[in-house]
Amino acid sequence: MRIDLRECVNFLKEHDDYLILTHRSPDGDTLGSAFALHRAFQKVGKKSFVRCGDEIPKKYSFLWEGIANDPIDFKTIVTVDIADRKLLGEKFDALYGDKVDLCIDHHLVEKEYSKYTYLVDKSSNAENILDVIDKMKIEVDKGIADCIYCGIATDTGCFLFSNTTPETHTYAARMIDSGADMQSINRAMFETRTKSYIALEKRAMDTIEFFYEGRVAIMTITQQMFRDSNSNDGECDGIASLPRKIEGVIFGVTMREREDGSYKVSVRTFPPYDAAAVCSQLGGGGHIGAAGYEFDCPLEEGKKQILKVLEGAL
Amino acid sequence: MRIDLRECVNFLKEHDDYLILTHRSPDGDTLGSAFALHRAFQKVGKKSFVRCGDEIPKKYSFLWEGIANDPIDFKTIVTVDIADRKLLGEKFDALYGDKVDLCIDHHLVEKEYSKYTYLVDKSSNAENILDVIDKMKIEVDKGIADCIYCGIATDTGCFLFSNTTPETHTYAARMIDSGADMQSINRAMFETRTKSYIALEKRAMDTIEFFYEGRVAIMTITQQMFRDSNSNDGECDGIASLPRKIEGVIFGVTMREREDGSYKVSVRTFPPYDAAAVCSQLGGGGHIGAAGYEFDCPLEEGKKQILKVLEGAL
Repeated sequence: MRIDLRECVNFLKEHDDYLILTHRSPDGDTLGSAFALHRAFQKVGKKSFVRCGDEIPKKYSFLWEGIANDPIDFKTIVTVDIADRKLLGEKFDALYGDKVDLCIDHHLVEKEYSKYTYLVDKSSNAENILDVIDKMKIEVDKGIADCIYCGIATDTGCFLFSNTTPETHTYAARMIDSGADMQSINRAMFETRTKSYIALEKRAMDTIEFFYEGRVAIMTITQQMFRDSNSNDGECDGIASLPRKIEGVIFGVTMREREDGSYKVSVRTFPPYDAAAVCSQLGGGGHIGAAGYEFDCPLEEGKKQILKVLEGAL
Repeated sequence: MRIDLRECVNFLKEHDDYLILTHRSPDGDTLGSAFALHRAFQKVGKKSFVRCGDEIPKKYSFLWEGIANDPIDFKTIVTVDIADRKLLGEKFDALYGDKVDLCIDHHLVEKEYSKYTYLVDKSSNAENILDVIDKMKIEVDKGIADCIYCGIATDTGCFLFSNTTPETHTYAARMIDSGADMQSINRAMFETRTKSYIALEKRAMDTIEFFYEGRVAIMTITQQMFRDSNSNDGECDGIASLPRKIEGVIFGVTMREREDGSYKVSVRTFPPYDAAAVCSQLGGGGHIGAAGYEFDCPLEEGKKQILKVLEGAL
């Protein structure tokens, strides 16, 4: 059931002992949302802890700096930034997918799976969490500001993507004013490339194929390339934006092979084109400018499938 | 002589027939500053035109979209975003360097060369221009907002660099509200990489050498590499940020060979390190996080010079 901000806050006030879940392949918005909420709960004496179906990359450790995150006997499950229970990951979906009490999300393509859903279409879900924290009258300290800033910066590509609004900048200004260490966060998130990532990017760039007079670029990243470059999936958050950046490219597609041989696909585009519409035809979803889906067939078959859909979209 | 905002605005009101000069190797801040001022002058019936010692890259054409920029018999020379008259370029320095009436700039290392200087340390000079336009009570239309946003986004690396403040975000929010097409601007400025640029970047990355246990990375771009990749200097605004992004690197140095065989050097770092302090020892200057200088000796000699200075800075 969809609820509004007041109802969401009432729910949070009336309950306790929270398990906060992020999506798998966690990014700065789902993690920033989760730890901001966890920190806010701690400030008002509520119990909570954060879990993720996948391992959380080390670079995000600043999000829980100075606070505990120990398992408790939870009574209430909240998901953050999760539009579809499948995004919990297989194991967590089986464990918690049908027991979610509250989902706080910002994806318009939300597939309702929770008892209650608080959903507003903001540039990042962290902004929704900030609205919740404000409405709960919990003071935003440096720790919370770091988490919220991290979420905003992640989902807007550091204020680069088309989802950035004047409101996004206003939230960011306030978070920096509240002590968010934007400098260290940006350096960790956007300005640090490991040598293994650089080696991977080089290999990935070499795989790019162009279709439809250069308006579509498909980049492929295989498990073999991860091994050759000593890199891994957790290292390549931003890599999916590369194909779209090539001059003339309207749809940039990145196909990343998973360990089980299936593929995770990221699609990037710009108005008036719609990446979410493309991906929804292939069983996925997301935002207008950035969306994704998965496939579990041979790579060349997967390419044919999306090329057919893209032909219609162009 | 240093003047304040009120005096600067009085000067601009009392004069007319402006030649507005940008620095050579023009970027989005010097050009955004110049065309915002030019557009503002047009709105109040003052005559002006913008010139640059180097050719202006095509991607900036949105800055003068819909307005004329024809030479006039100018009486007053204003420079924007120019800390040192040498940055006018050799030809323009000879023509105008000692005739500048007003300099509007944001570099603390400013080497005063103009009759009057209005200088405030903002993240971009475009913000100073906006203050001037506001104080002149000229309404910010879409064209001006585009120019100011372009300047802010350029000098903060799209709100990524450490010079970004809450005020920067507040200015940006206002410009987007005033109609700045941040989406197209960001796409043109940050999200479009030509195939020739990509080829150049690949070659450049291969030249990176590490010093002092990986804390210094030096990347070299030669004229030969421009030729081999069919690229040019105007295409590689952002390339200087690459060496610093490598994990463990504190000082990222980029040496770009000019056509005359001299080198333009960009130095990038993060607090508590100071790129401007390093470059000022080598005859240059800039900001704490990003600064530059030039040298006109053999490349290996140039490397030795900066490595000596960096040894002291580390």
